[in-house]
Amino acid sequence: MPVHTIEWVADGSDTLVPGRIRLVDQTKLPGELVFVETCDPQEVWTAIKTLQVRGAPAIGVAAAMGVVAGIQGSNAATGAALAEEAAGVAKRLATSRPTAVNLFWALDRMTGVAKANAGLAPAELKERLAQEAVKVHDEDVAMCRAIGEHGATLLRAGQTVLTHCNAGGLATALYGTALAPIYVAQEKGVKVSVFADETRPLLQGARLTAWELMQAGVDVTLICDNMAAQVMKEGRIDLVMVGADRIAANGDTANKIGTYGVALLAQAHKIPFYVLAPTSTFDMSLGSGEEIPIEKRASEEVTCGFGKATAPEGVQVYSPAFDVTPAALITAIICEHGIARPPFAESLRRCHAMV
Amino acid sequence: MPVHTIEWVADGSDTLVPGRIRLVDQTKLPGELVFVETCDPQEVWTAIKTLQVRGAPAIGVAAAMGVVAGIQGSNAATGAALAEEAAGVAKRLATSRPTAVNLFWALDRMTGVAKANAGLAPAELKERLAQEAVKVHDEDVAMCRAIGEHGATLLRAGQTVLTHCNAGGLATALYGTALAPIYVAQEKGVKVSVFADETRPLLQGARLTAWELMQAGVDVTLICDNMAAQVMKEGRIDLVMVGADRIAANGDTANKIGTYGVALLAQAHKIPFYVLAPTSTFDMSLGSGEEIPIEKRASEEVTCGFGKATAPEGVQVYSPAFDVTPAALITAIICEHGIARPPFAESLRRCHAMV
Repeated sequence: MPVHTIEWVADGSDTLVPGRIRLVDQTKLPGELVFVETCDPQEVWTAIKTLQVRGAPAIGVAAAMGVVAGIQGSNAATGAALAEEAAGVAKRLATSRPTAVNLFWALDRMTGVAKANAGLAPAELKERLAQEAVKVHDEDVAMCRAIGEHGATLLRAGQTVLTHCNAGGLATALYGTALAPIYVAQEKGVKVSVFADETRPLLQGARLTAWELMQAGVDVTLICDNMAAQVMKEGRIDLVMVGADRIAANGDTANKIGTYGVALLAQAHKIPFYVLAPTSTFDMSLGSGEEIPIEKRASEEVTCGFGKATAPEGVQVYSPAFDVTPAALITAIICEHGIARPPFAESLRRCHAMV
Repeated sequence: MPVHTIEWVADGSDTLVPGRIRLVDQTKLPGELVFVETCDPQEVWTAIKTLQVRGAPAIGVAAAMGVVAGIQGSNAATGAALAEEAAGVAKRLATSRPTAVNLFWALDRMTGVAKANAGLAPAELKERLAQEAVKVHDEDVAMCRAIGEHGATLLRAGQTVLTHCNAGGLATALYGTALAPIYVAQEKGVKVSVFADETRPLLQGARLTAWELMQAGVDVTLICDNMAAQVMKEGRIDLVMVGADRIAANGDTANKIGTYGVALLAQAHKIPFYVLAPTSTFDMSLGSGEEIPIEKRASEEVTCGFGKATAPEGVQVYSPAFDVTPAALITAIICEHGIARPPFAESLRRCHAMV
């Protein structure tokens, strides 16, 4: 079982409010495991802003809980006044990260619930909002768990999975996406091992994936990205499991830079390549991955990523943040509704229709 | 033209001795260009030991010159006594690096010349040994130059070369192997661009290749290793040029970890993949690359490579230093005698016979 990335901790046993948010401070990883406990919405804003909490699903949960933290001490005389306050807190939290879709989605959901229940007494509305935030959390856990259950059917005891970047529990409330099958298998007594690409430039594989798997007692081995081909050639990898940032209707998958290369290497070694992601990642409006824009990142992440310069001053750098793996290289896409296999145009539509 | 990695600088204009060794301190790169100037054999020992000079050919040149530095101030009464002293200096220098073949080769060559010329007067023998050391240097330059001339015939103006690790001028006396065609083309007014893989874990691509190409005025762009596939997919790469640590009789090539992956990616994108190395790298006693042992490196190079820990303490690491690229993925092997194409069993034997 991985570490709980984020939880709501009620002070008493009868009600959810008053309570606190408890989250892993991911900026301290992998050096030390430090939890932030807070009931201050400004601290939640800072936690999102400074990447103490990261990963779209985990940010959504933090934002929802941040709204509760912001209104639970309110002296508003009516539910309507309290709903107004909740909207104000949400508006402030929305400024923490510019492009996190789950952030805005979670805040809209909370303000919507507040408005719809403005007729309640303030104390009741506070409890109702806390329930909603916990529901956002629990739904995320259930979704990851479902991905894990489906994905675990692809794993046999003694197998070794290669993964890239961190699509693990730390990016969600619990379990993660690409790593969920490994945790579910572990719970069922099926032991698998993992090779984790360190994932340059930001080393999410080394800092986060290796850390959370070690915490959970999963056998994990860290490699540099350029070692994956050799590790596959030596017969050490049985299958690849990665997450996704966006999946087009035809199955083309945008994910962390390096994923496409891993998919090509897996094909060359006849190793199955699986993408694991919730249906919220499916973008059925995109016919193919060619329509997915690729963000370019700052050169400093490559040249000074470790606290000192590791390249000549002024060197030109090309640093795409993502790449697109063509559907033809993907064995299957696993979402909360099941395992989609080629042709993806049909199987993804079926999964998406279950939402 | 790249920087001269190592040179013998005579104090006067008539004779080579007395003189000094002038070498680029590669431990200061890419931050600053500092030259070590020394006529102290102990400082040469330290320069080799601490990687101020690195790359098998450059180490050989440094060792040969180190022998001259060690005996040029001698008061030996006879050539035979001086030859004894030269053997003593060589024996000490041989302890600087345990596995550098060129180191032992160059030292044996110097002591052989000393012994064969022990009948000369001491002053004459000193000059003779200095000539031999300069010859070791000049032969390396000529060999790299020849590789560059042959390789440059594969380049057209405006093309872009992807390279991995550093098989550049800094690893040899001048020009390098994989980068030699780029410098030769530049001298002929043919401008090509380079993408350099940073080459984890030790970042030779970022620290050395990017640096020496920038110094020479070659257009170079640095990428992380895991970006190579995407860069190829975007059509930015016309051909791949890499060095080699050891080439088996069938063409299988051992080189820095990550090379095999690049070769697979090149094949998937239909990009020519060239290996550039002197015939001294050919090991005709090996039937195939499967007989080449792969050195495993310490985990710290992966987990603490940048002055701070970037992975959890105690994490398992798998770090092969080299990989073997099967001959089937190699378009041609370029040595000082020409361009060998498949079937390599024949073409390499022909090149090797020219030695």
